Amino acid sequence: MVPMANFSVEDARATQVTPGFQLADIDPAATPNFSDSKKKLLHEFTEIDDELTDLQEMLYANARAGLPHTPRILLVLQGMDTSGKGGVIRHVMGTLDPQGVDLAAFGVPTEQERQHDFLWRIKKALPRAGRIGVFDRSHYEDVLVHRVHGLSPLPVIEQRYGQIVEFEQELVDSGTTIIKVMLHISPEFQAENLRERLERKDKYWKYNPGDIDERLHWEEYQQAYQIALERTSTASAPWYCVPSDNKPYARMVVKYLLLGALRDLQLQWPPADFDPAVELARLEASQQQLQQRLTQQQ
Amino acid sequence: MVPMANFSVEDARATQVTPGFQLADIDPAATPNFSDSKKKLLHEFTEIDDELTDLQEMLYANARAGLPHTPRILLVLQGMDTSGKGGVIRHVMGTLDPQGVDLAAFGVPTEQERQHDFLWRIKKALPRAGRIGVFDRSHYEDVLVHRVHGLSPLPVIEQRYGQIVEFEQELVDSGTTIIKVMLHISPEFQAENLRERLERKDKYWKYNPGDIDERLHWEEYQQAYQIALERTSTASAPWYCVPSDNKPYARMVVKYLLLGALRDLQLQWPPADFDPAVELARLEASQQQLQQRLTQQQ
Repeated sequence: MVPMANFSVEDARATQVTPGFQLADIDPAATPNFSDSKKKLLHEFTEIDDELTDLQEMLYANARAGLPHTPRILLVLQGMDTSGKGGVIRHVMGTLDPQGVDLAAFGVPTEQERQHDFLWRIKKALPRAGRIGVFDRSHYEDVLVHRVHGLSPLPVIEQRYGQIVEFEQELVDSGTTIIKVMLHISPEFQAENLRERLERKDKYWKYNPGDIDERLHWEEYQQAYQIALERTSTASAPWYCVPSDNKPYARMVVKYLLLGALRDLQLQWPPADFDPAVELARLEASQQQLQQRLTQQQ
Repeated sequence: MVPMANFSVEDARATQVTPGFQLADIDPAATPNFSDSKKKLLHEFTEIDDELTDLQEMLYANARAGLPHTPRILLVLQGMDTSGKGGVIRHVMGTLDPQGVDLAAFGVPTEQERQHDFLWRIKKALPRAGRIGVFDRSHYEDVLVHRVHGLSPLPVIEQRYGQIVEFEQELVDSGTTIIKVMLHISPEFQAENLRERLERKDKYWKYNPGDIDERLHWEEYQQAYQIALERTSTASAPWYCVPSDNKPYARMVVKYLLLGALRDLQLQWPPADFDPAVELARLEASQQQLQQRLTQQQ
């Protein structure tokens, strides 16, 4: 028997970062609003697939039909190493039509990117109208890594929070729904994941000795996240801090956040800019004509 | 009971365009080397998913590990309107990890693209090392549409076949496996598909009155395809002419072609460029250190 649905968009949104938020209070191993079996979790995960793909197609259709002001969605994924960003992309985005997804990953900036403002490469990678953009890391690296390692002077970093809020507000004003997700894991869970990468030959490629050095800055990273989330979680571009020691749970939450954003757009199928009856008649005529010609050829 | 596997890479490759090929002899409604039930077809379709995703991850891992000469795969999809290019992308590529796929669609060239050689926009969209590139239409539009509608002088088009063969040979020489697929449909099947687009409000956006005008050039398009396939199906960059009136069949064939290309690469997991034992020790030490620090904080 198929279990009843018991997770919702509202449940997912309960992870939103609101005033007074304290990252230290969030248990990475918790599964807020979900206490059921793994089997039920997998059910919840796939149950909304049809609605999700329909809504995504509708969004894409609006852009393809050339409707003005077709919105777009931008999902920003951040988290410590091994927090599961790749898994979210694979499992959540894997449900969607790849033609409607604009995926961008932001690694260490290239020499060219370094010649520009930190938002330059971000702006170049923004999703097109009607698409769901996914950022695997983002402009937040410039207030996270940069803060932890002092890669930029503190006054510059301080200025960036405001620049980010303004930039994101502009995106929202021009029709982008922004969903920012921090995949929040514990150091124990990270150790587990890194251990796996060191024990399996098919995982070596994911490991980098530098990961251990980074890991030892744990508290500084948590502090940098606390500040970033606090200062940049706005009503129009909120952060969601998703407990992610339980991977399937985190993936489910992100999927519901995406579903909520799509529902809120209240899209319609684009109307026909032609007369369907007239076109049907043209189609049947063309078929007759073709059949006749092709028969004569034989 | 799960049905036994009875489709193979070799079966898929039997659709290859070889000397003497006549498009007119290919029945778009046939399902060569497959005569079983739809249920079995769906089974064949998903049976190879694990191998496919493993091999794709290995390909991606090679590039991420920075191994020199990491290959790439390029899947070129061509076909008449409604031949199912989008469906192949959705269903075949949907199995893969989106992070390892470089998707590009080529519509009517932009003003900027028109200022350049016809291969300019193609070269810009080639897949990165370790990725599977998918072209939804391609440089072949410049010898198909252009031939049918006389968009370029005939001598220019004639020259392009040679340019294409050379260009593709260069790609192959630099480590790209090229799979070119023509999704071959009948005019009856196209009529069915167009009819559906005219009868369902959620399909209107896919319809364009110009589709009927294009359709009436059926024989000229078949002729243009015949010439293109004949002249550009080489041993190193072969064309496959896949009967596509049966959509699930066509998708299955493309999936097996992709599997064959991945198998032929004979990839290995990249070796560790670190000492796993040393790193495991570092990891455990870091965990102890972190635990101590985090406990003291509380």
